[in-house]
Amino acid sequence: MISSVFFVFSVILSSSYAAMQDFCVADYAAPQSPAGYACKDPAKVTVDDFVFSGLRVAGNISSINKIGLSAAFAVNFPGLNGLGVALVRADFAVGGVVPIHSHRDATELVILVEGTVVAGFIASNNKPYVKTLNKGDTMVFPQGLFHFLVNVGDAPALAYASFSSANPGVQTLETALFQNNLPTEIIAKSTLLDTVQIQKLKRLLGGTN
Amino acid sequence: MISSVFFVFSVILSSSYAAMQDFCVADYAAPQSPAGYACKDPAKVTVDDFVFSGLRVAGNISSINKIGLSAAFAVNFPGLNGLGVALVRADFAVGGVVPIHSHRDATELVILVEGTVVAGFIASNNKPYVKTLNKGDTMVFPQGLFHFLVNVGDAPALAYASFSSANPGVQTLETALFQNNLPTEIIAKSTLLDTVQIQKLKRLLGGTN
Amino acid sequence: MISSVFFVFSVILSSSYAAMQDFCVADYAAPQSPAGYACKDPAKVTVDDFVFSGLRVAGNISSINKIGLSAAFAVNFPGLNGLGVALVRADFAVGGVVPIHSHRDATELVILVEGTVVAGFIASNNKPYVKTLNKGDTMVFPQGLFHFLVNVGDAPALAYASFSSANPGVQTLETALFQNNLPTEIIAKSTLLDTVQIQKLKRLLGGTN
Amino acid sequence: MISSVFFVFSVILSSSYAAMQDFCVADYAAPQSPAGYACKDPAKVTVDDFVFSGLRVAGNISSINKIGLSAAFAVNFPGLNGLGVALVRADFAVGGVVPIHSHRDATELVILVEGTVVAGFIASNNKPYVKTLNKGDTMVFPQGLFHFLVNVGDAPALAYASFSSANPGVQTLETALFQNNLPTEIIAKSTLLDTVQIQKLKRLLGGTN
Amino acid sequence: MISSVFFVFSVILSSSYAAMQDFCVADYAAPQSPAGYACKDPAKVTVDDFVFSGLRVAGNISSINKIGLSAAFAVNFPGLNGLGVALVRADFAVGGVVPIHSHRDATELVILVEGTVVAGFIASNNKPYVKTLNKGDTMVFPQGLFHFLVNVGDAPALAYASFSSANPGVQTLETALFQNNLPTEIIAKSTLLDTVQIQKLKRLLGGTN
Amino acid sequence: MISSVFFVFSVILSSSYAAMQDFCVADYAAPQSPAGYACKDPAKVTVDDFVFSGLRVAGNISSINKIGLSAAFAVNFPGLNGLGVALVRADFAVGGVVPIHSHRDATELVILVEGTVVAGFIASNNKPYVKTLNKGDTMVFPQGLFHFLVNVGDAPALAYASFSSANPGVQTLETALFQNNLPTEIIAKSTLLDTVQIQKLKRLLGGTN
Repeated sequence: MISSVFFVFSVILSSSYAAMQDFCVADYAAPQSPAGYACKDPAKVTVDDFVFSGLRVAGNISSINKIGLSAAFAVNFPGLNGLGVALVRADFAVGGVVPIHSHRDATELVILVEGTVVAGFIASNNKPYVKTLNKGDTMVFPQGLFHFLVNVGDAPALAYASFSSANPGVQTLETALFQNNLPTEIIAKSTLLDTVQIQKLKRLLGGTN
Repeated sequence: MISSVFFVFSVILSSSYAAMQDFCVADYAAPQSPAGYACKDPAKVTVDDFVFSGLRVAGNISSINKIGLSAAFAVNFPGLNGLGVALVRADFAVGGVVPIHSHRDATELVILVEGTVVAGFIASNNKPYVKTLNKGDTMVFPQGLFHFLVNVGDAPALAYASFSSANPGVQTLETALFQNNLPTEIIAKSTLLDTVQIQKLKRLLGGTN
Repeated sequence: MISSVFFVFSVILSSSYAAMQDFCVADYAAPQSPAGYACKDPAKVTVDDFVFSGLRVAGNISSINKIGLSAAFAVNFPGLNGLGVALVRADFAVGGVVPIHSHRDATELVILVEGTVVAGFIASNNKPYVKTLNKGDTMVFPQGLFHFLVNVGDAPALAYASFSSANPGVQTLETALFQNNLPTEIIAKSTLLDTVQIQKLKRLLGGTN
Repeated sequence: MISSVFFVFSVILSSSYAAMQDFCVADYAAPQSPAGYACKDPAKVTVDDFVFSGLRVAGNISSINKIGLSAAFAVNFPGLNGLGVALVRADFAVGGVVPIHSHRDATELVILVEGTVVAGFIASNNKPYVKTLNKGDTMVFPQGLFHFLVNVGDAPALAYASFSSANPGVQTLETALFQNNLPTEIIAKSTLLDTVQIQKLKRLLGGTN
Repeated sequence: MISSVFFVFSVILSSSYAAMQDFCVADYAAPQSPAGYACKDPAKVTVDDFVFSGLRVAGNISSINKIGLSAAFAVNFPGLNGLGVALVRADFAVGGVVPIHSHRDATELVILVEGTVVAGFIASNNKPYVKTLNKGDTMVFPQGLFHFLVNVGDAPALAYASFSSANPGVQTLETALFQNNLPTEIIAKSTLLDTVQIQKLKRLLGGTN
Repeated sequence: MISSVFFVFSVILSSSYAAMQDFCVADYAAPQSPAGYACKDPAKVTVDDFVFSGLRVAGNISSINKIGLSAAFAVNFPGLNGLGVALVRADFAVGGVVPIHSHRDATELVILVEGTVVAGFIASNNKPYVKTLNKGDTMVFPQGLFHFLVNVGDAPALAYASFSSANPGVQTLETALFQNNLPTEIIAKSTLLDTVQIQKLKRLLGGTN
């Protein structure tokens, strides 16, 4: 009783690989391509590949920045692979800060669901765009630009940040400069920071050289 | 004292249009292009173009689907234009439903922040992927596929949905079919639905013909 | 006598993988990526990978929709992989219908080569765009929107549909809803269709639950 | 009786510019952008913008190549703008030829609906892929590569070619070289063709210098 | 004598807007779109729109970083608009430095044509990739990541940098932080830099607050 | 002492595959995808993958075109894979010529660093854009169009050409037509060239048939 319109398209769409056209659940064990992870055999894909529970609870609050960050990125949420979206949960302690960072390939859209934060980004002509956000406000940080959030309220804050990439690169200024073995002299020359400042932050963050 | 490296790049980047390279805040009055709205003169852009408060409060709960939806799309949040992200706040009454719909150009990533919902999508081989989500769970609905959420708890629910497009088209099955003047006979032939059913829903939703 | 300009570029372009830059013939046995199938070794590619004869004859006419559909998609025509085009042949019996469906990632451009059909699509603001097409007419259905074709002539009709994707996903309303095990109660809540209607079409199309 | 789910999305989607998200019908009078033509005011868009009748009849058969070509491109079919598909109808007289050409930004997928042609493309490593096509066969010419079709049957032939671009650039070897004022000496040096040959074809095709 | 194949395509391709499909020379006076500048009327385009002489001579050497930078970006070279390439000439005095910066939307490929420099980039896991480049060497800095070049030779150096964007945003760490009115307290919290350091560099670079 | 903000993101970004998000160094031994080569295991990537010395010296000057061309393409410079940029060094002897060619997927931006050349491209409406370039001039050749460079000075010339693709296909007119076994009769019909001319160039360039 099933008509051939269904049959013909079924031939096309019910083969194991056809479903891949709808999604490409990450197979972390296979080599990647410039477009992302290889696809898991669609026959082995289940609904659990599209559901992620890692944002249920707050991340550990860091001692330095007083921020807990939990991410749902393609790197840990396989269903996102190839689909161009990702999500972060940010739990701010009082005084908590998301330090200045950028995403190499993604715009970020943040919604503050609890608390009061000062948020901002810096355009490539050096102009800052800064605003105090209240509960329910959203702010967009255009792709590739420095941005930050600072909890300026007297209570914890909670925000969700979504991204226009399934695996937004995060380059945080303080760790990019000071949590590796890039020689102090090179950092000094290419940032104008003082050697003493660089060495102090390398010690704090675990950098060497 | 400002070095010419800054000067030279300043020439490039401080002209009024240079800032446009970082963002393209929507000018709703000018003609659009296939890539989105025209850009507001960067000299007139302020931080308020990048901040949106329309999601602070719940949308009105509908009498039929018992759902309140509020959107931060490029169409009402100008800073999103061209940046490939958008956000919706969904407030579910008890029994509230986000009816089956699809987005012509966007993947959706939903996070449930309150309540318990059954969520799902249907792949193009007709296979449904359905799961009960609890507080804090996220689920991804791949681009262009039917999906839905049903509040199955005994309390209101709240979710945020982010999108891989600044203006994700929303095509809702029930309104696309029954809230216009598409002739009943054509709907019947092209969906196999009964004429009586079609006419009933046209009356409910305001369709004619 | 061959000049080194040819030689130098030959080094680049005559290696087995260099040809891959021009095309990526599908290797169905290897894992896919979000960008499509893996590429067959270019040394094994022949002209036959770029030619497809599956549209020579009409597809079987279905008993329900009286339509025969044959597809040249990357899933069965390996030369299309990665190239962003595909083709369908649609043979309409008298009264034949291409039921309401959408493509998750493709615009469709149809040309009617025999017969008279009513064709249309529904925009995301629910507005239908419907027209009677005569022999030789073309119509475009923008990406991701519901569309349909109904043979309203008293003779068979024939159309070719081309797509802006090598593997356009096809989501047909009637099979997406009624040819699987999605529970009737969920369908009812998320479409407003009556339970009796849903059960009737599940029986017709092979759905359960 | 209309629920607010429809109302809220209606606010978003029923403004005149909202429909633009589904399509961007070309406004030929306004300045273009790198993404294509500006969009016509959606309030003035009708179904006729999406339907084109220019392919109903054969194009004039040329005296030199014995081919008639008619195109449905965004440049003359406004509904295609921004949607990444286009179509050409090719009517071959006996002995008719589509001369060697390439498309700067599009793959071509041709279906032969009448006749017998030899078709082929040349890869960037100079390897030709050539095949005799019979009625109903399709062949794909990957983006940017030289390709051609020659009617080798003893009857007229008819083909439709679809493209992965709404306005595929056509660069035909013989007219690009010989139908302009590019100096003969430059052509000779940069093609190795003889001066006499160049001058002969310039005379035939209307070139100067 | 001109055949209709040329005629038909001429209709398509010789209208003033048809040429636009090949290029979109920037019209700086018109509103931009997310895809770049609006296109100049093709009838007014000349070869001079595609040629740029601004890189003939070295840029002024800055007193701080001892570097002269000259750019051929779509913002000053209109023919690049929409085409995804750009070029910078970097003249290094002895000890000259291209300070740490990133491009929001572009990969950079540098070729050193004179001198010896240390060049490097920092990945998003904080790992630096650093190398001494000699005359003729090229190095690639992937999109959106911090990178720098330091002249370590005892003579001037000269490099050309090409980009995968027609208008690569340049965000230089030292000016983004210290050449604006972003409050010192916010910088301190979101970078861990000391207040004294921040104030010193604000004075040097012209920042306030 | 390392804060959890660093820890959490470290979990994401320090896994071996996470670095892949920043780059995808080519693994030439694995199957390719439509997006390019597969990625080398990031744990085995070193700075040398991002540095290429193949452009240090001039390529061999060809006897026919008197041009030496050396390329840094993803096919021989693995760090470029997926990043959308590439580079060619062109050494012109006196009278040297880069023959007419096109790139199937890339715009070219050339900078002349020594000498005087005539450079040009031909638009798809057959209009040539030709200019004499002097030392330091740059010229852009839009994607997919025929272009050429001729050394018209009395000394050698040197140019660098950058591309908006990591592996720009090069289709050179003279070798595409005459350095293979495409039958003379087909070439004649599809180019209008004389048989004698075709046979002469096939002999010169090594073609057959």
